[in-house]
Parts: sequence; C-alpha cells; structure tokens
Amino acid sequence: MNEKVFRDPVHNYVHVEHPIIYELINSKEFQRLRRIKQLGTSGYTFHGGEHSRFSHCLGAYEIARRIVSIFEEKYPEAWNSKESLLTMTAALLHDVGHGAYSHTFERLFDTDHEEMTRQIMTQEETEINRILAQVSPDFPDKVASVINHTYPNKQVVQLISSQIDVDRMDYLLRDSYFTGANYGQFDLTRILRVIRPVPNGIAFQKNGMHAVEDYVLSRYQMYMQVYFHPASRAMEVLLQKLLQRAKALYTINKDFFVRSSPHLIPFFEKSMSLSDYLALDDGVMNTYFQNWMTSSDKILSDLAQRFINRKVLKSIVFSEKNEPHLHILRKLVNQVGFEADYYTAIHRNFDLPYDVYHPNSDKPRTQIEILQTDGELAELSSLSPLVKSLAGTKHGDNRFYFPKEMLSQTGLFRDIHTQFLSYIYNETFIYGE
Amino acid sequence: MNEKVFRDPVHNYVHVEHPIIYELINSKEFQRLRRIKQLGTSGYTFHGGEHSRFSHCLGAYEIARRIVSIFEEKYPEAWNSKESLLTMTAALLHDVGHGAYSHTFERLFDTDHEEMTRQIMTQEETEINRILAQVSPDFPDKVASVINHTYPNKQVVQLISSQIDVDRMDYLLRDSYFTGANYGQFDLTRILRVIRPVPNGIAFQKNGMHAVEDYVLSRYQMYMQVYFHPASRAMEVLLQKLLQRAKALYTINKDFFVRSSPHLIPFFEKSMSLSDYLALDDGVMNTYFQNWMTSSDKILSDLAQRFINRKVLKSIVFSEKNEPHLHILRKLVNQVGFEADYYTAIHRNFDLPYDVYHPNSDKPRTQIEILQTDGELAELSSLSPLVKSLAGTKHGDNRFYFPKEMLSQTGLFRDIHTQFLSYIYNETFIYGE
Amino acid sequence: MNEKVFRDPVHNYVHVEHPIIYELINSKEFQRLRRIKQLGTSGYTFHGGEHSRFSHCLGAYEIARRIVSIFEEKYPEAWNSKESLLTMTAALLHDVGHGAYSHTFERLFDTDHEEMTRQIMTQEETEINRILAQVSPDFPDKVASVINHTYPNKQVVQLISSQIDVDRMDYLLRDSYFTGANYGQFDLTRILRVIRPVPNGIAFQKNGMHAVEDYVLSRYQMYMQVYFHPASRAMEVLLQKLLQRAKALYTINKDFFVRSSPHLIPFFEKSMSLSDYLALDDGVMNTYFQNWMTSSDKILSDLAQRFINRKVLKSIVFSEKNEPHLHILRKLVNQVGFEADYYTAIHRNFDLPYDVYHPNSDKPRTQIEILQTDGELAELSSLSPLVKSLAGTKHGDNRFYFPKEMLSQTGLFRDIHTQFLSYIYNETFIYGE
Amino acid sequence: MNEKVFRDPVHNYVHVEHPIIYELINSKEFQRLRRIKQLGTSGYTFHGGEHSRFSHCLGAYEIARRIVSIFEEKYPEAWNSKESLLTMTAALLHDVGHGAYSHTFERLFDTDHEEMTRQIMTQEETEINRILAQVSPDFPDKVASVINHTYPNKQVVQLISSQIDVDRMDYLLRDSYFTGANYGQFDLTRILRVIRPVPNGIAFQKNGMHAVEDYVLSRYQMYMQVYFHPASRAMEVLLQKLLQRAKALYTINKDFFVRSSPHLIPFFEKSMSLSDYLALDDGVMNTYFQNWMTSSDKILSDLAQRFINRKVLKSIVFSEKNEPHLHILRKLVNQVGFEADYYTAIHRNFDLPYDVYHPNSDKPRTQIEILQTDGELAELSSLSPLVKSLAGTKHGDNRFYFPKEMLSQTGLFRDIHTQFLSYIYNETFIYGE
Repeated sequence: MNEKVFRDPVHNYVHVEHPIIYELINSKEFQRLRRIKQLGTSGYTFHGGEHSRFSHCLGAYEIARRIVSIFEEKYPEAWNSKESLLTMTAALLHDVGHGAYSHTFERLFDTDHEEMTRQIMTQEETEINRILAQVSPDFPDKVASVINHTYPNKQVVQLISSQIDVDRMDYLLRDSYFTGANYGQFDLTRILRVIRPVPNGIAFQKNGMHAVEDYVLSRYQMYMQVYFHPASRAMEVLLQKLLQRAKALYTINKDFFVRSSPHLIPFFEKSMSLSDYLALDDGVMNTYFQNWMTSSDKILSDLAQRFINRKVLKSIVFSEKNEPHLHILRKLVNQVGFEADYYTAIHRNFDLPYDVYHPNSDKPRTQIEILQTDGELAELSSLSPLVKSLAGTKHGDNRFYFPKEMLSQTGLFRDIHTQFLSYIYNETFIYGE
Repeated sequence: MNEKVFRDPVHNYVHVEHPIIYELINSKEFQRLRRIKQLGTSGYTFHGGEHSRFSHCLGAYEIARRIVSIFEEKYPEAWNSKESLLTMTAALLHDVGHGAYSHTFERLFDTDHEEMTRQIMTQEETEINRILAQVSPDFPDKVASVINHTYPNKQVVQLISSQIDVDRMDYLLRDSYFTGANYGQFDLTRILRVIRPVPNGIAFQKNGMHAVEDYVLSRYQMYMQVYFHPASRAMEVLLQKLLQRAKALYTINKDFFVRSSPHLIPFFEKSMSLSDYLALDDGVMNTYFQNWMTSSDKILSDLAQRFINRKVLKSIVFSEKNEPHLHILRKLVNQVGFEADYYTAIHRNFDLPYDVYHPNSDKPRTQIEILQTDGELAELSSLSPLVKSLAGTKHGDNRFYFPKEMLSQTGLFRDIHTQFLSYIYNETFIYGE
Repeated sequence: MNEKVFRDPVHNYVHVEHPIIYELINSKEFQRLRRIKQLGTSGYTFHGGEHSRFSHCLGAYEIARRIVSIFEEKYPEAWNSKESLLTMTAALLHDVGHGAYSHTFERLFDTDHEEMTRQIMTQEETEINRILAQVSPDFPDKVASVINHTYPNKQVVQLISSQIDVDRMDYLLRDSYFTGANYGQFDLTRILRVIRPVPNGIAFQKNGMHAVEDYVLSRYQMYMQVYFHPASRAMEVLLQKLLQRAKALYTINKDFFVRSSPHLIPFFEKSMSLSDYLALDDGVMNTYFQNWMTSSDKILSDLAQRFINRKVLKSIVFSEKNEPHLHILRKLVNQVGFEADYYTAIHRNFDLPYDVYHPNSDKPRTQIEILQTDGELAELSSLSPLVKSLAGTKHGDNRFYFPKEMLSQTGLFRDIHTQFLSYIYNETFIYGE
Repeated sequence: MNEKVFRDPVHNYVHVEHPIIYELINSKEFQRLRRIKQLGTSGYTFHGGEHSRFSHCLGAYEIARRIVSIFEEKYPEAWNSKESLLTMTAALLHDVGHGAYSHTFERLFDTDHEEMTRQIMTQEETEINRILAQVSPDFPDKVASVINHTYPNKQVVQLISSQIDVDRMDYLLRDSYFTGANYGQFDLTRILRVIRPVPNGIAFQKNGMHAVEDYVLSRYQMYMQVYFHPASRAMEVLLQKLLQRAKALYTINKDFFVRSSPHLIPFFEKSMSLSDYLALDDGVMNTYFQNWMTSSDKILSDLAQRFINRKVLKSIVFSEKNEPHLHILRKLVNQVGFEADYYTAIHRNFDLPYDVYHPNSDKPRTQIEILQTDGELAELSSLSPLVKSLAGTKHGDNRFYFPKEMLSQTGLFRDIHTQFLSYIYNETFIYGE
C-alpha cells in the first residue's frame, strides 16, 4: 500500500503505512466516532472544542506510530518489532467503544465503554473484528487484552494506558489546540526523543525529565481549567437529570419514547445489544432530546430545551462539612416550583494528577520512571519537587447545582431568593461555616 | 453588563460588551448553529474541520467588533458610531439562517438560507426578533437589510459582505486553523491597522496593501486546496443523490418517511414553515440517514450507508469538449448494476477569486480599494500584479463521479471495468482527446 | 504624532503613540542596546537566542503600554492616568544601563548596571536625559526612582519590578520564543484581562489565578532548562577567567592592552566614566577578545580562543558536603598542565522561584496578590498548592568546571585522566559520598 | 557518535548523526558565523531579525538532512546514498564564506563570498579543510564544486542551489519567524512529502504543487515586504557611503585607520589574505565604525554615528524616465551643506521571483519541475497561473536616498527644503511627470 496521510492540525500529518490500519479507519464502527464529540459537554463552554473522538483516535495512533518507529530504529534489542502493529492498533481503537455523552450515559444505563470496546473488537458481527482477524485469529483478543491491561508485554500496555500514554498525550495537545486553552501544550518532540523501552515497561531518559514534568503539570492544569469547568459540568448535570426523567417516565408512557427516541428503547428495557449501542451517537441523542422538547411532561420538555438551548445551571462550592445542610437549599428550590430532584444536583470532580505505584491499592498506578545516566530507574516525583507537590493528592471540588432563576432578585419569589442568596458567599455555600 | 469573553483559538478571546449581543448569542436560534458544521462535508476529508457555524459567527462578530472599535476611535469623522451595534449584530447573525448541509439541501428542496436569515430576524415568533426589537422597532429590518445589501450605508454593507468582509476573514482563518491546511492564514492584525472608512465604503491604506494581497491569495488557495477538494465534493454528491432518491420514493411510500424522518415531511410536501426549517440540523439529518439505512429500497439504503460510513465516490476531471461523451461511462456504470442516475454525477466547482467592479454585471462586485498617500483610491488589481493574474478568471474544475468499484480490476465485471479504465488517464477523461 | 509601530514576533506589534517614547527609542543610548545580547552566553547553547536587549526593552514597554491603557479605561478610579507615561518610560528604560556580558563583567570590574541605568537617565550628557527632561525637570529622577523602587506609588514600582512585572513577562515569552525552548510560554492575554490596580499595588482577579500560577511555573522551568544550562554557564566561566587573566596581565603589560583593547583601560585603571561604560558592547568586547588571541601570554590567548570559538568547559555537580575535596580535582588539572586558577571554576546557580513577603528579610519580596470575589486579597501560594511547593525554596546547583581534555582517555596523561574520572559518576563528584 | 541535537525554533530540533558534521559545526570558521547577522541591515527595520548566519546554516543543513533521509528510504533506486553526506555538508557550509555586511562590503572591496567559501573549504590552513579531508582527499573539492554548480550530479546541486533549494527554504522560514513578518511561511512538511529525485535533478509530485506554488509566493512576498524594505536599504546606503569615505581618506591618513581599524588595512591595500578575511565580522566592523565616530573628518564621523545610532536616510521612488533629473535634487542637498556624493544615493532593488529555464541566458535558471501522475515532468508555471504571473518579470524599485533633514520645513534653509519638497509627491520623484 502507498502511504496515506491525513492532514491533522495537531500532528501536522497522520501517516498510515499499514493496510490493516487503513482498513480499520475506514470501518463503519470507526467512522462512527466522527459523530461523537471528544469533549462531550465541554464544547458548550469552550466553543472551539467541537472535535470528535475520531480525530483524537487518529492522533493517539499517530503518537504510537512515531514511538514504535523510534523503538524499532533506536532500541531493536529492547523492543520486539512484532509488537508494533499491535501497539498501533490498540492506540487507534482504544476509544472505539465510546458512545454519546458516555460518562453520563453509562451512569444512567449501566453501560461500559471499555466493555463495548472489547466487544467491538471481538464479536464477529463487526467490521473491525473481521479486519483484525485478518492479521491472525487471536489478534482481536490480543488487542482487547492490551486495552484490558492483561496483555503480558508491559511495554505495550503502558504505551496505551498509564500515567503517560499515547491517549493522554494526544488528548492534552488536541483539547488544548481546539479549545484554545493553551495549558495543555507540552513538548511532545522532546518526549519522543527520550522515551525508551526498558525491560518491564517504558522509561524516559533523565535529560528529558523536565519535558515529562511539564506534561504532568499540563495535565493538571487542563483538569483544573477545562475538564472541571463548572459550566460544562452544569450541562452534564442537566443531561443526567434529563435522562433520569426519561427513565422515570418510560414506565408510564412507553409509546411516547417509542416514537420520539426509538433507539433508546433497548436501554430503557435493559436489553441492549452491541448493534443497539452502536446506533447511538451525539446526533441521534440530540435529535431525541429535540423530540422530547414537545413532550407533555413539563419537566422532561423543560430539561430537554434547557439542554438543547444551553440554559446553564448555576452552582456553588460546598465542603464535606456543610454538605449535610444542602437540603435547606433544595427545599427553597422546591418552594419556588422547581422539583429539586430534577433541578438540583451534587457534582463531584476530583482528579489525582499523579501517583506513585502502590501495590496494595485497588487500582495501582504505573509510576513514571526516569532513566538515569548510570542506567538506574528513578520514580519521577523523587526527582521533581513540582510533581511531588501534586502526587498522591486529589484535586477538584464538590458543587451544588441549581436553576439560574434562584439568583434573580425580582419577581414573585423574591423573598425565597433572598433567603437562598443569604447562604452563598464568594460562590460558596456558607451555611454552618 | 460586565464584559463577557469566550475563549477562541483563532482570535484568542471573543469580547462581548453589549447586552444585546450577549442575548442574541444565548437565543435558541443562535445556539442551534452549534449543531451545524461550518464546513459540511469537508470534515470528511479534513478531519479537524469539525467546527460549527456557531464558532464562525462568533468569530465574524469579533472581527466586526474590532473594526468598529477602531473606526470609532481613529476615524470618528468618517464613521457614524451609531452604526456600530448594527454592524456587530449583522456580523453575528449573517449566517443564522444556514441549515444542515445547506448547499445541497437548498438545491433539492428549494430553500434559501439568506431568506431564512431574514425571516429569523424579522418574524415575531423567534427569540432573535424579540431581542432585536428591543433596540428599536425597525432594528430587525435594518439588520436584515444589511444582509440583503439594501442598507443605505455602504460602509456597513461592505464590512458584512464584499470581497473582503468579516465573514470571509473569519472563515479563512478559522477553516485553516481547524483543518490544519495553513493556506488560509493571513495577517489580520495588519489589515485591522490599515482598514478605514471612506465616504462611500471601506478602503485599505497603501502601506498594508501586501496584507490585502496576501488575503486574496489565501482565499484562492483555500478554495483550490480545501473547499474544492474532490473527496469532499464526492460526499456532497452522495448526499445529493441520497436526498434525490428519498424525494422520488416519498411519493410512493410516505409512511416510511413519516416514521424515519418526520421533520423532513414538510420539505417533501413543499409546505415548510420557519419552525420546520429550524428543526433540522446536522444531527437530525444524520439520524434520518441512519434510519434510511434500514429501508427496503436498495438504492436508498445503500446510498445512506455510503454517506454515513464515508464510502467516497471516485472522480475524474473532464473538459467541456468531451463532456458530451460522458454517457459512455454512465452506460458502463449501469451495466455493472449501479443505476447511473444515482451513482454517477457531474460536479462543477468554480470560484472567481477576485474581480473588479462591473456595473453591468448581474452581480456586480464591490472592488477592493487601496487608499494612496495622496488620498486617492486605487483598485487593488491595478497595483498588484499577483491579484491581477487572478482577477476576472474563474478557477476550478468539472468532475464526473462514479463508484469506486469501477476501478477494481477483478471480479465478475472485469471486462467492463477494463473498458471503463481505458477512458481515463491521469485522473482525466480522455475520450476524444 | 502618528502612531508608530514596530513589528515584533512576540507581541505582533509594538505600538508607540507618545512622542517622548519615540524619541527615547531613537536615542543613541537606547540604540546601543541593539549591540548587546539579551541572553549573554546562553546564545552559545540555544543558537536561536541571539536577540538583543533592544528587542526585550521594546517588549517590556509594550506590555506596560497595554496594562496602563487597560487601567485607564477599566479602573480610572484606582489608577492615576498621570502615571501612565512614567510607567511606560520606566519599562522602556529599565535595562538601559546593561552592558556587554553584564553579569560577569560587573563581578570583575565592580560596575553596576542599575547604577548605570540611573546615570543614563539623570546625567546631562546623555540624549536620554535631555528627552526625559522635556517632560518635566524632575522626570529623569522620577523614572530613576521607579527603577530604584523608591518611587512612592507602589503600583508603578510593582509593574516595573516585582515577582510578576513587565520585565519578567516579556523576557519569559521572548527568550522562550527565540530559543525555541517553549517552557516560558504563558497566557499573557489572560493575565492582561485580570490584572488590576489595588490601593497599594497590583493584584490579579481570582478567575485568572491559573494563568498567574502558570506564569510562575513557566519562570521556574525557564530557569531550570535555559538560564541555568551547564553549557551556557561554562561559557560564562570561560569569560570570567579570561577577564581575570587580562586584569592580572594588565599591570605587567599595559601596552598590549592599550593597543588591543583601548576602551577597557578605564576599567583596568578603575577610573571609568559613563561614556567609557557606554563605549562597550558585545561587538567591542568580542573584537578585543579576538585581539587577545594573538597575545604572547599562552593562557590569555588560549582562553580567548576557547571563548571565541566556543570550546565549552565540562562540569560536574558537587554537594556542599564534598566541596572541600574539590582541591583533589584541581590538583590533577594542574598536573596535566592546565593552571587550575584559570582552567577550573566553581559556578553556583540558584533561583528562588517565588516567595511570600518577609518584612525582615534583606530583600523582602512583593508577594503576588489574588483578588477574590469578595474583594479580599489572598497571597498566591495560599491558594495554589503548585506555587506553594516552589515558594521559599531555592532551586539550582553547584558545578565544578574543568577542561574537556580531562575526560579524554588517551594520550600522555592517561593515568591522571583515569584518576580524575574515578571521582565522577553520573556527572557528579562522588569523592567522599 | 551519539546523535546530537540543537534546539531550533524553526525546525524544532536540528539533528546531527554524522561526526564530520558535528566537527564542522565546532570548527572555528563555522563558529565565526555566530558573529555575522543573517539579515545585515534589515535588523534595523525588523528588530527581531537579529539571528546569525550560524543559525541559518544549521537550518539549511537540517532541511538537507531530512531530504536525503527521505530519499534514502523512499527512493533508493533514484538516489545514490553516497551523495548524502556530500549534500548535508554542502548545505551546512554553503554560506561559510559570508562576511560582515557582505553585500555592501563586496562592492566596495572587491571581495566575493562565494570565492571565500571555496577557499575555506580547500585551503589547508583552515580547520574546515582538515575536517573535510578526513572523509577523502578529494572531498573538499567535491563540496566546493557543489557550491560552484560544477558537480556532475544535478540532484545534489539543485538541492543546494536552485529556485527551490535548502538555502531558500530555510531562510524564508527563519527570516519570517525572527522578524515576525509571517509572509515567508510555507508548508515545508508538505514539500518534504512530495520532493523526489528524478534522473537529472529534483522534482515535486503533482499532489503537492500548491505547496510549491505557495513557497514561490512566500518568497516573492518576503522580497517585497522585508528584503526590499526602504529603511533597511537606507542603512545599506549609509554603510556604503561610510566605507567609500573611509577608502577615500585612507590614502591621506593611513595612521588613523591603522589605529582605528587595523584589520581593514589589507582591504584598503588590496592585499587581503584568507585569514584577513576571516578576522572581520559584524562586531569588529561596528567597533571600527564606533572608532571612526571620533575622526576629525566631519563626513566620516557623521556617517559613522548615523550608521551606529540608526539615523535612517529618507528616500523617494523614481522612474527611469525622470532619473536624469535627479541631479536637481543632489544640487539642493549640496546647497544645504551635505556633500551629495556622500549624502545621496541611488539604490536599485529588483528580484526575479521565478523564471523558466532559458538555455541561452547568462545565468540560466533551473526551473521547478512538477511530476505528474503519468510520470511526465511539467514546468511549474505551465500549471500555475499564479506563478505564471510572476515568472520572468523583475519586481522591485529604484530609490533615491537623501538626509531626513531635507524634509524639515523650518530652519535656515527653509526655502531650499520647500523647493526640494516640490519635486516629491506620494513619496515619488515627480519632476518631468
């Protein structure tokens, strides 16, 4: 096959030399990723962030391609070139099971995008399975095992999923480029110069340690600035409440949902198949929400129009200490006529920017290893005071969401609003402080 | 109102100081633009080009805002500051009537996005009309008249629509940024330094002429490289054929379309209202196409899955001279079993990169004027040999599209394919050459 | 005066509206800054870093201009617009007293670029003094007092000199742009949006705290990556030794220096006037060093050619603990025939990335203040765990420099080299560890 | 040798794998290029343009390295890998013979930087010659023959010197990056994808034609916007007049020049050796000019201080038709007391942006060849109307330079100034028009 290229604003070009990769890109399950936004509701806050999972997956693949090509050329003794195609394939497909608004959707409908990724690879009905099986009969399972972290070669697994992997490297650069929030930029070229395979994983030469440090900081900053933005989470909350209302109504009025949102029925009925899952995407979901805007149920139609027309909920920060008192606010919201179960919500967003390996933890993390000039490995935070300051600590906040109307100081319910506002100071819930 | 900002990767920040602008952005008709891609089918070729008309409209507004703010400060005698809000509003709303895949859709269903823009501004049912009317009762009509070029102040009209207007300036920068095809970059800062109001329009000081020249070249190159890309046009052709098939089938099997694509019915029936029009967007259309993939009509379902799964048609260039012989190719396509009416197409793409003003032309163009140090205006191409070389000449090509299968050299119809290929050389139709 | 602009790759354009600023830029003392590199010996490591102090001073001025223009427009009650010209002038001239390789030169010849800056402003012989005096008779002293931190208005002083000032903001962006080491990039636009005058200084609104945090990190990373680079310090060491040798020889052989480096005589003689100081620049110094390459003194000529031809000394890190043992290495260097006083050196580089205000410290630092939504100020590190991790701690290292020849493993002195190498491991001095 | 890298803001990293290249970079003749600015007097107009020939030569080498590495990998049958080192070496050294302000200097002192480049390569006294001779005894001559266009392999020659060569590609990108005048940017990555060796030279695949077209346009625009900028040429004129005056005075007062500018004596005496040539650089020349500022000759000292302190001459455009009347202006300049021979000048700047091959021309140009899908070559301008519009035509202007003082409208010579101004309109000499 002649090399194919895809013009990419982040990596300049994505290069495809292997026909299997090209066929995978052209498969219908992969093309479906064009219809799913990478950033979900964050695009409502950062209007440039409208790129799809398709473009991110190509990008993660491209970084993997560059890495294995460097490994093959510079470290043939430490890298088995037979793993290269597997690595590139896993990078390309690592998110193929993502659905529309996955995060929220999964919570409501008990789906699991990682399990879906596995099924897309291994079930015979998919184009992707058929393409993978051309490589060898066990190739679909091998790719799936990389995604599941059970593949024996830790080098491959870490490239695809670890605290510094092709997924994270691409999404930081990409989300940062498209949103215009430049905090996610780091020096990929330098990292590619110092990354290398070591006996049981991946390490980075010491002379590039600052680039790795910068990557960790960039990731932290993107979480704080973009991924945890209160307005995006407000949209996520709205979506959650909307789907929750739909589920509740479904048992009462199936007909409406059969007409307005046919492909959601298997999810309401908990009888979902892989093809049902693949039938959903952002466009289909939004179409259904637009249909729901005409529902006779006031809450469903109102939440749907708020989501579609971006009527953002407002929020305040609260602490663990005064969380037990939030019922006071919920009560006031109810008094104004908004059913608090659907118009208020608690949203918690925390990230652990970096952690060392804790063998006894539930989800032990692969720590980032720095290769010193004497050949010894040292864990990143032992060398970097900056990373040490982030390691092991979760960062984020708890927020209580409610309708913007509560902040209005006029109208019928002025007194209730005033009472509501009296509990808020500096965008924080201050009852009991 | 406190100034609001929107983080924008192209202009860094979009600034909103006027409450009317902020309300317009938050209106449902404007938010709807988030669901319509700026580049239509070009995103299938340049995967980064997934940005929406929402982000372009904000960008065009931001350029307008900067220009009127410069005009107010530097040229108070030549610019009436009362026109500033009108100019910003018209920039923001100039594309508000665009629908999903407008270009193709309009041809098939006789809609007109400019007329829709006018209706959204002037019909009382829209949020936008109500917001505009807050300024003054005649403000909706004034904004509409700017879009229609009938507003008497030519300065305002030219800023919104001319050979160098806020629309073009934003889309070149934006499409270029998101696709990664850098040809559209030009020196906006320089242009903002030299743009100025003159008695009957807009001119550019001579010391910035090269920036204007560069802008004209950038536009030409974006047309050649991005907007006229054969693969994007292939997707446009598919879409056109798909809708054409649907129209044909509708008369026979209304029920199927009522179920699978309810919001298209008013368009099939030619009884479309404004709210029908606003109900459509990219997501709704794609949802319908996904529904059509299950049609019992083989052509409809096949074209739908080709469009959704990006199975690109192939194409060759032909000349006016051998266009009459294309029926030979169509016949071969038919012989292989593809109904040529739906599987072949002629696609013509031509652009006039720049032209001087021809008072007697159908659509006379406002030429770009350069203000010389002595105060005289000179038309751009009279000073720039590069622009002169582009002026008045249409650039583009005619292409004949057909299924990729015709290029295969194996299978049942090998002989027909061989015959088909014998008419092609260098991606060009050579019969009779 | 018509606005003048200077094309600048960092700020796009530098705008000059005030004739005093324009005259100052055109003064001979300011033009002299074109002949002095901003980064001194760092350009030997980062070849792109060849920009001059002229370009940095324009850049610092431009940031100041943007800030005062924002202050005038947005905070007229908190900012006295009469301070604007003073602020812009101080920003422009803050480094005007810098000389060639200032850092090293000052140590050897007891000069002081801050004192020189003051003299250039206040002595009647300079063009700059005459231009400043046009504003008012006390204006030269006022500008000097801003540089000296004695000007009563702390807003002005902090803009020019504090932990986040126009000097640092420009040099981070500029050094980062020209060297290609991107670590110095931060979001200036955002910082300009949130900076504001407060009663006794400058603060940053809370919604921009992350941009300020990012600036502090960028500065830290530029120090670690660029400013403290061992190779640049090696060149600084060479320069220091070269000047030290010249001083020693001068007492013996004045004639040679009168001929080869006439403008250095006043410095050897400790009788330097302002015009003597202004006669030196990078080109003059390098010309002298090239002349010294022909000296009959072997050490002077050798050090001169090593500096001119960039023969970098090598270095190792040592700790306070084993510093007392460095004499062992010096002895070995002597044995090989390199006079250790001229061919070895200790170089210490430490920076305090950020600190809170300590009223009793020698040089109390103005801390960075964040303005919260309730109007209260909070010190940056109290809000940012990342900054807290950097605050109050010096970062850097101690290095011992020696000729590269010591690392060679062949030749006459092989045994001595082997012994020398035995004390080194991982680029670190390990004697006694 | 371990690969070495140089951080470069234009190419991200310059990679050196071959020890010969590394030694050449470290040679004293190559390090000398750090002391010579790439853009000469243009840095006085675009203050960012202070980069050296050192950085440009590294950049040209890096492009060559990328190209030969692509050729070796993709076109082993069409490219002889034995030519790779030669190509990289020639790219690195192509400008090694450049001196301070070469253009002007050569005209005054009859030197020739191309001849100097040859001598540096082939004379045994240089470090570069010794390094080159390590490859093979005839390697120095081979490299020189590439520079002289006499090397038989036209592929190598065209990569180093043709209408699209590594020199031009680097300087456009670099000058554009450092000056901030973005017109020189083009899509190098795309060009590297489509460049390929063909039997008798270099060609570009048709699918990259637009990138090549864009490169030609970028070059044209950089000439018009940057290289031909009237202010830079004014400084060139000053320099020329300054050296002209020095030459004239030398015969009268040798002593002064022996003291003030010793390394220029061989040039005044026309007895220059290679080492004399290498002793000069920007710093040495500027040091001499600073010395000349103290001359008792009023013209020499005045011109020297105008050059050093950037007192730009003013200029007007004239046509061939009215050139014979310029003596009128010269006479007026004389009347005011400026000796017209030293204070006025004609400066002609013309460039031929592109040309096809004319076998009978003095300097036939190698045309740019586009490789079509059928394997045939087509000359670029036959396919690109934009390039056609530039081909074969020289662009530029003739300017007459004179002291800024002539434009003043006050003072003793007001009447003469008024008369002078009466011949100027729109910065153009209008006598006889």
